[in-house]
Amino acid sequence: RSADGAYQLRLSGLLQAHGYFFSDDHDDAVSDTFTLRRARLIFQGKLARYFDYFIMPDFGGSSPALIDAYVDVRYQPELSLRVGRFVSPFGLEHIRAAGNISFVERALPDNLVPDRDNGVQLFGELGRGAFEYALAVANGVVDGGTSQNDTSDAKEFVGRIFAHPFQSFGIEPLRGLGIGFAGTYGDQDGALPSYKTSGRQTFFAYRNGVVADGERFRISPQLFYNWDSFSILSEYVLSSQEVAWGGMSDTLENEAWQVALSYVLTGESITYKTMFYPVWGNGMRPRHGFDPLKRNKGPQTEIWAAPFQPSHPWGALEFVARYNRLDVDSKAFPVYADPFSSARSASAWAFGLNWYLSSHFRVTADYEQTDFEGGAASGDRPREKVAQVRFQAAF
Amino acid sequence: RSADGAYQLRLSGLLQAHGYFFSDDHDDAVSDTFTLRRARLIFQGKLARYFDYFIMPDFGGSSPALIDAYVDVRYQPELSLRVGRFVSPFGLEHIRAAGNISFVERALPDNLVPDRDNGVQLFGELGRGAFEYALAVANGVVDGGTSQNDTSDAKEFVGRIFAHPFQSFGIEPLRGLGIGFAGTYGDQDGALPSYKTSGRQTFFAYRNGVVADGERFRISPQLFYNWDSFSILSEYVLSSQEVAWGGMSDTLENEAWQVALSYVLTGESITYKTMFYPVWGNGMRPRHGFDPLKRNKGPQTEIWAAPFQPSHPWGALEFVARYNRLDVDSKAFPVYADPFSSARSASAWAFGLNWYLSSHFRVTADYEQTDFEGGAASGDRPREKVAQVRFQAAF
Amino acid sequence: RSADGAYQLRLSGLLQAHGYFFSDDHDDAVSDTFTLRRARLIFQGKLARYFDYFIMPDFGGSSPALIDAYVDVRYQPELSLRVGRFVSPFGLEHIRAAGNISFVERALPDNLVPDRDNGVQLFGELGRGAFEYALAVANGVVDGGTSQNDTSDAKEFVGRIFAHPFQSFGIEPLRGLGIGFAGTYGDQDGALPSYKTSGRQTFFAYRNGVVADGERFRISPQLFYNWDSFSILSEYVLSSQEVAWGGMSDTLENEAWQVALSYVLTGESITYKTMFYPVWGNGMRPRHGFDPLKRNKGPQTEIWAAPFQPSHPWGALEFVARYNRLDVDSKAFPVYADPFSSARSASAWAFGLNWYLSSHFRVTADYEQTDFEGGAASGDRPREKVAQVRFQAAF
Repeated sequence: RSADGAYQLRLSGLLQAHGYFFSDDHDDAVSDTFTLRRARLIFQGKLARYFDYFIMPDFGGSSPALIDAYVDVRYQPELSLRVGRFVSPFGLEHIRAAGNISFVERALPDNLVPDRDNGVQLFGELGRGAFEYALAVANGVVDGGTSQNDTSDAKEFVGRIFAHPFQSFGIEPLRGLGIGFAGTYGDQDGALPSYKTSGRQTFFAYRNGVVADGERFRISPQLFYNWDSFSILSEYVLSSQEVAWGGMSDTLENEAWQVALSYVLTGESITYKTMFYPVWGNGMRPRHGFDPLKRNKGPQTEIWAAPFQPSHPWGALEFVARYNRLDVDSKAFPVYADPFSSARSASAWAFGLNWYLSSHFRVTADYEQTDFEGGAASGDRPREKVAQVRFQAAF
Repeated sequence: RSADGAYQLRLSGLLQAHGYFFSDDHDDAVSDTFTLRRARLIFQGKLARYFDYFIMPDFGGSSPALIDAYVDVRYQPELSLRVGRFVSPFGLEHIRAAGNISFVERALPDNLVPDRDNGVQLFGELGRGAFEYALAVANGVVDGGTSQNDTSDAKEFVGRIFAHPFQSFGIEPLRGLGIGFAGTYGDQDGALPSYKTSGRQTFFAYRNGVVADGERFRISPQLFYNWDSFSILSEYVLSSQEVAWGGMSDTLENEAWQVALSYVLTGESITYKTMFYPVWGNGMRPRHGFDPLKRNKGPQTEIWAAPFQPSHPWGALEFVARYNRLDVDSKAFPVYADPFSSARSASAWAFGLNWYLSSHFRVTADYEQTDFEGGAASGDRPREKVAQVRFQAAF
Repeated sequence: RSADGAYQLRLSGLLQAHGYFFSDDHDDAVSDTFTLRRARLIFQGKLARYFDYFIMPDFGGSSPALIDAYVDVRYQPELSLRVGRFVSPFGLEHIRAAGNISFVERALPDNLVPDRDNGVQLFGELGRGAFEYALAVANGVVDGGTSQNDTSDAKEFVGRIFAHPFQSFGIEPLRGLGIGFAGTYGDQDGALPSYKTSGRQTFFAYRNGVVADGERFRISPQLFYNWDSFSILSEYVLSSQEVAWGGMSDTLENEAWQVALSYVLTGESITYKTMFYPVWGNGMRPRHGFDPLKRNKGPQTEIWAAPFQPSHPWGALEFVARYNRLDVDSKAFPVYADPFSSARSASAWAFGLNWYLSSHFRVTADYEQTDFEGGAASGDRPREKVAQVRFQAAF
């Protein structure tokens, strides 16, 4: 950091050690495992006041990869330019930083949402976050995919708007209401995606030889609401893609949605920050950081606002629950996907606890149960029951 | 950085987001694409005053890789030792830092130049940069190649000298003249290189089964000249290699050269720094960094020295142009390479603009047109016309 | 580093450039090579006083990989928790930091020792390092292996205790005696390991199709002793694994041991630090850092304690020697391993010099000679003679 703040370099990171444990898995189709889900290092900074850079490799997963790498020109907040590889401005849960999501894994709609792409983005905000927008031109990626190089000349357009219409009004319960809409439009040839459960098991894949062959668009209305220690995240995603196999072709529309609730038992508040100002850390600061040999002091809050107020500093505790569902277009079967190995729908509910020991260290434990229609020779793919644990350091 | 300067650690990096757009590409042989060409992080420092280290991974491209990693023992400037993986001291344009090159991509001679190699290097300078030398023993790499482990006991010797003979004389137009000569000598079995255009399309490759089988040497006379805001970079490279296929063998001599001109329209000066003291940043500091809502002050320079002097601070503007050419040995055809798919020569001209918004942020736009002899079933491979754009942050 | 020390971030690293040169290698079975053995960057720090993180990717070798990534909860020194990927607390030489080992490569017992694994570990120390313990539950890895995801539900248990029983007694020659014991227990299906010499050549591998199929356990008694400038490291490892091929199965017990001696000729002392407080740098601080144009001052020590006391500061010099041996269970042949390509034992002796130019820069030169029983069509695999050189910067 230079003396006048015109030059800065900040090194931060995110480490997520996960454990997945499946119950009722009688035929050992999947293995309980410890894994490093994300081990990200973030090199970001500012050059000559108006130029930001951001480089984030991830060393978790099966091999290291570059997740984000972009430069921003930020001369005026209303109109900025981003060039490089960045999160496609589309999915509500997806553009939330990986260290801030409420569950160990994102929900089923994340399967339909583009991940990272290479391209150019114009973005900005008006009225101190009351309205924000982003418009990108990029290589184009399949549902859930990340781009390296493009394999066609066609580019994908991605746009998103999000507003807090009541942000500057006096009505307290409405101030935290945010609504938005996102869409993509492009043309895709070749690869097609597959879809996974939160236990990271593939439940839907196209047949070998089926390819994307033409127009693809996606739309997503989305909502985030918070009031004190309570919040709701909800989104709907529709992904439409022309596919072809042999001489046949069709337009398939897959859709998914989720509603996720969060209640911080110890009374802290969680807000959803915009994609342009990522929050590092856990996204929440406990009133009392972990140090149980001490005693808490100070006034207690009302019981409805914080039902769990221990006498010693144990950190903050959040209860979360969600319902989420994905439906594959019924026209996909049996030509483009095998009904005996690919399910035509997955619906899941989950609940979990987030224990924030400090604003930078967090433990999450979830249970999620997913039911399928189709996807097995005997009818329905067996229910997946998975307990998931995460230890997270966000520095 | 320790108090006495004996211990230092510096973290820096280079981010290059490129766009490639091909025109007259009627059969869509190549795709227009956005890509991350380089996303490099540099960890360098000093230990106990005399020991330098340098580690530079690159997260751009298709997968992360370690580009440079070496330690230097620098007890006296006349004689230093480098051990590890480092740039082979050979090609003039190649040993210029990737953030300082004048165009989006290096020219055709870069195809014949060794990239990085593992080994040991003695190097030094005399008379404050008036004379510099480097002599390396390394595993040996093919033209344009980078070394991991050696596959043969034979090692490659690489040497380079470079002099600024008029550096301490009073004749101003001659002071910036630098001339040099480089060579390699070794023995190579096995893999052979292929050659690419600046649009990163392969135009020459040996037939399957053709292998390197014996002596390889390269020579390269080179010149860099600058006077005020004008500069010239020129180099010639000859690469000779014994190749074999089936029972036949031959010695093939491929050659390439380039002349590149640069003129800074806003009057700044560009110098070519030696390989031993890499310049980070863009290699050029604009007189007026980007901030167009302000106004420029101060005296204007003469019009011939800086024809473009805007009234508001927009940064610096450089015009560049080059001619470059590569000729494959005619003896390569038709035995060792297929004349219907590999061209026997490529010649290209390019021009471009470099817009330096600050000394650390730069935008480059080039147009390059390459003509081929041979390389297609119908005679000549079609002309390649490519527009290239780079956004670069060097921090 | 925050003002109160509750938050810290430290960036360090390790760079090892190696050269391997084989003599008497008449048929060129292996190639002399320069290579980058390790190029590690270490991002570690402290969050809210009680939470440590550690992320260490390695860019050396054939491709980048994540070596370590874990979080520690360290509320009391007697009982700490580690979650993520970390060194299995088993092998004495293995848990010594890679920058501190006495030779260019670790000895033959390292082939039987688990490397890194994903899981959870409880650990602590009592009496200021007089007694330390670690107990881990992890995915389970083959001998010498590193874990990504588990392929079975079964987990591996790993435990180790180490004590310095005479640490607080007055008898000087006994204070530096440390003894320990380690064991693992688990169940492994599928992959089996292969074993390598210190020249990194595979001398033993199971036949294709032979798999691990059941119980695996390992035990290892271990000893480290140091007195002034003299030290001994010794360990024994037994690895037992149920294997199967076709309809046959058996329990194979492979074993290995080593004794390694170190004598610092310039009189400095080397200690073995516990696994919980890794020593970065070389693990040894020379009395006189490299600066040979100066002169040494101060009193000389007695000749038996430091036989080599140059008049100019050249750094420290250490002589090392070892004997090491690995025996494959004779029941492995000929069913599970081919006696004509896999040796049934390897025994090696080595000596070397470590030149510590500073506490962070070191040059190592070793010679190791390995003899085999079996492993060649003509009887015994030929003796391996390898000279190894390392240049190391640890920052």
